[in-house]
Amino acid sequence: MDFNNSSYKECSSKNLDDDVKLPSCTVRTMASKAITIDNINPNILKLEYAVRGPLVIRAAEIEKELEKGAQKPFKRVIKANIGDAHAMGQTPITFIRQVISCVTSPELIEKGDYPEDVKQRAREILGACGGNSVGSYTSSHGIEYIRRHVAEYIERRDGYPANWEDICLSSGASTAIKNCLQLLCNNIGGKPSGVMIPIPQYPLYSASLAEYGLEQVGYYLDEDHQWGLDIEELERALADASKNCNVRALVVINPGNPTGQVLTRDNIESIIKFAHKHKLFLFADEVYQDNVYAEGSKFFSFKKVLREIGSPFDDIELASFMTVSKGYMGECGLRGGWMELVNLDPHVQAHLYKCISAMLCPSTLGQTAVDCVARPPLPGEPSYELWIREKTAVLDSLNKRAKMIVDTFNQMEGFKCNIVQGAMYAFPRFELPPKAIKAAAAEGKTPDTFYAFRLLEETGICVVPGSGFGQRPGTYHFRTTILPQPELLKEMLDIFQAFHKKFTAEFSN
Amino acid sequence: MDFNNSSYKECSSKNLDDDVKLPSCTVRTMASKAITIDNINPNILKLEYAVRGPLVIRAAEIEKELEKGAQKPFKRVIKANIGDAHAMGQTPITFIRQVISCVTSPELIEKGDYPEDVKQRAREILGACGGNSVGSYTSSHGIEYIRRHVAEYIERRDGYPANWEDICLSSGASTAIKNCLQLLCNNIGGKPSGVMIPIPQYPLYSASLAEYGLEQVGYYLDEDHQWGLDIEELERALADASKNCNVRALVVINPGNPTGQVLTRDNIESIIKFAHKHKLFLFADEVYQDNVYAEGSKFFSFKKVLREIGSPFDDIELASFMTVSKGYMGECGLRGGWMELVNLDPHVQAHLYKCISAMLCPSTLGQTAVDCVARPPLPGEPSYELWIREKTAVLDSLNKRAKMIVDTFNQMEGFKCNIVQGAMYAFPRFELPPKAIKAAAAEGKTPDTFYAFRLLEETGICVVPGSGFGQRPGTYHFRTTILPQPELLKEMLDIFQAFHKKFTAEFSN
Repeated sequence: MDFNNSSYKECSSKNLDDDVKLPSCTVRTMASKAITIDNINPNILKLEYAVRGPLVIRAAEIEKELEKGAQKPFKRVIKANIGDAHAMGQTPITFIRQVISCVTSPELIEKGDYPEDVKQRAREILGACGGNSVGSYTSSHGIEYIRRHVAEYIERRDGYPANWEDICLSSGASTAIKNCLQLLCNNIGGKPSGVMIPIPQYPLYSASLAEYGLEQVGYYLDEDHQWGLDIEELERALADASKNCNVRALVVINPGNPTGQVLTRDNIESIIKFAHKHKLFLFADEVYQDNVYAEGSKFFSFKKVLREIGSPFDDIELASFMTVSKGYMGECGLRGGWMELVNLDPHVQAHLYKCISAMLCPSTLGQTAVDCVARPPLPGEPSYELWIREKTAVLDSLNKRAKMIVDTFNQMEGFKCNIVQGAMYAFPRFELPPKAIKAAAAEGKTPDTFYAFRLLEETGICVVPGSGFGQRPGTYHFRTTILPQPELLKEMLDIFQAFHKKFTAEFSN
Repeated sequence: MDFNNSSYKECSSKNLDDDVKLPSCTVRTMASKAITIDNINPNILKLEYAVRGPLVIRAAEIEKELEKGAQKPFKRVIKANIGDAHAMGQTPITFIRQVISCVTSPELIEKGDYPEDVKQRAREILGACGGNSVGSYTSSHGIEYIRRHVAEYIERRDGYPANWEDICLSSGASTAIKNCLQLLCNNIGGKPSGVMIPIPQYPLYSASLAEYGLEQVGYYLDEDHQWGLDIEELERALADASKNCNVRALVVINPGNPTGQVLTRDNIESIIKFAHKHKLFLFADEVYQDNVYAEGSKFFSFKKVLREIGSPFDDIELASFMTVSKGYMGECGLRGGWMELVNLDPHVQAHLYKCISAMLCPSTLGQTAVDCVARPPLPGEPSYELWIREKTAVLDSLNKRAKMIVDTFNQMEGFKCNIVQGAMYAFPRFELPPKAIKAAAAEGKTPDTFYAFRLLEETGICVVPGSGFGQRPGTYHFRTTILPQPELLKEMLDIFQAFHKKFTAEFSN
């Protein structure tokens, strides 16, 4: 019995006081339970996370049906819903895996035929672990040895100093983002705190704001200008929201998820000045910093630009987030990440670290992956050649796939897709015939969700509807990853084109 | 600059409006920051976690001082503050590490000389991972293949069925506990939800209740009766608290942390009936289920007893928590755990799973460790002999150390220590001379904290004062792990005895 399915989903959105009408919901009467829909944390009810929502749950069901031999017009589900590179056939970076194996089974350091730099790295990481074992807890903000390497990585990237004590390792970026958001929960003057997030956004933000009772203050990215971030729109959103909440923080995702834009240095400078002007805590979600493809695009970290523009703007509070799940590594399952904290009130930083300490520590093996990313093999070291070859191959291939996907969508009738300058997703806009919009309404679905469900049921392709990320009213989008390997991606795009033609024909007069 | 230190700690507890008087706190005036002590989430300010508190931070400082060659009356810090077995010299279980190495570097499956059951297990786990890689995300409640093994483990343990869809894998038990606690946040009739926790308790509970704004409803364990759990005391605590909050859940830690008691089957039955009577959600913290030492003591899971006593008591909502960090494994750094959910309202369970999904997934390598624990090698399989030998050696040694520590404390003047029936800690009670209590007050410390700081500074032994767990007013305790290896433990206890004599002499007339 899996309760987390779409039929339940529909049931939960109805009036549950009235549950006699909902046979699938009446395993027992609500009143006999300590926790029911009526007395559960109301923020949990509101929370939504489309990347793993009803459509994705249905995709998993279809996979099981296929396994059991069900006849479908397709042979496999293509999961283009989530940035899960290895699941789509990307191979791991050898250096990372070798180091992890060696710290896990230290006898491999001597017995296995691993390169000397792998062995040395494993010895050093083990030396930084209690009792020389990755089975020990680490400091709750991570192993000092690794935090120092992250600081050095940031210094090399930006050309400005980074303080290792301001680096906090985490179980992927999500945990760190949530820890920082949680600091903002407060009702000052009877108004909740508000957090500005882009629309479209990565739904971890909307989900976490709902969970923490923080007010979502959306600012629109400008689709007609390559999903650019317009300061006037930030001012508008801030002014509108200030009636209802105390706007205290600004989230920027660069390179963008789901939109794929890479912010220019000038744009970043304006954002920092805006944050300074309004005393906002700046969340810089920079997890795709290695994923920049378009000619002329370059990644600038907020930290670097902040240091470059200097006083009086460089005292804003900034948290920058990074992970080993994206980039060329794609090690989602290892759960490794970090944040750099800049200019935090030292009291606040101490309380943040204290709060993190109750959760013990991030995975030592995730931290090991972080170390490999923060301090990759250097030219001349035994693992360097292979490492750079593997890294370049992944990024070159993603670059080609980013172009292939955009070109295909732009050839499709009613589609318009901005260039994927960076990250791992395309977020095309598409037109829907009025009859399709009507049919969606009849099923109680948003039009983009209706389209995505049809796509899934007819082709096995799983994308996430734009409504899961937010979009301007009356526009329809979906997010697809660029992660299927080139051959599969080509196949997927061919199927997609055929589906879209058929769909358009079906719903046109 | 590490802000998370004891001098800061003192500063933060003073009036921060007045920060000109506190030079170490005045990096900049508070008003210039988006997040300050005045507008931070007030729950975060309240949160405390003694296991990693100021005393432990001081212990880390002392370690650094020793490294730099500082002269101290001791040569090393003995960290008896945290249940971190490998850090204290316990060696990992070979089977777990071999399987993790093989799934990390699949070429080891063919190349390495590992036993056939290790290779087979690794192949199967990889087969359950997207793209055959541990770098892929898994389902947010864990890999189905492993959840099924956990259900089978529970069935073997209890003799009653377990549903794999009610098993949710997690990053250690802490995450799962917090996810469940969060469901309770609500203000019904203007009163917050209350959660009953034992006093003394494991401070994850008090910290999480503070974080979530839930009311802590403490019930005292009966030190004079082997830290037993008395139903009359539960009734008293519930009645007292009901004026101020809606008591909705009951936490029981069995085997006990920090107290080391193992509940009898009868006691568990009474607790279940109490929870049923008052419609409480029962949190069964059973992470030490493998750690039972005392003759006549036996672990009974709440789930088993619930099934045995049957209707009408067996419909209470129960969440049972388990981890790979304790037991004979001690794999704290891998962050693997699970919870079993019993009798939850299906709507509530669906919302819980939805909430967990935004955090993507627990570490695949932590999940791999869970699989090894849930389905250890069977008699006749190549890894069985070594596995059972390693497991037995760890548990036998812990058993001896549990006795050694209790015997020693009970020989010390003014000490009284209950038998450590299970878990990994002793929680002795000790008397303090009035002069010591006065001296503690002069330093603004609780008497047990004063004692523990003196112990640390003079001997390098780090324990956690009883006030971090809760104790009856006017009594003093500390928690020490039983984890130092036998020789070190003997040395530690000798040093401890000498310190206590000296301390008592100093503060007696």
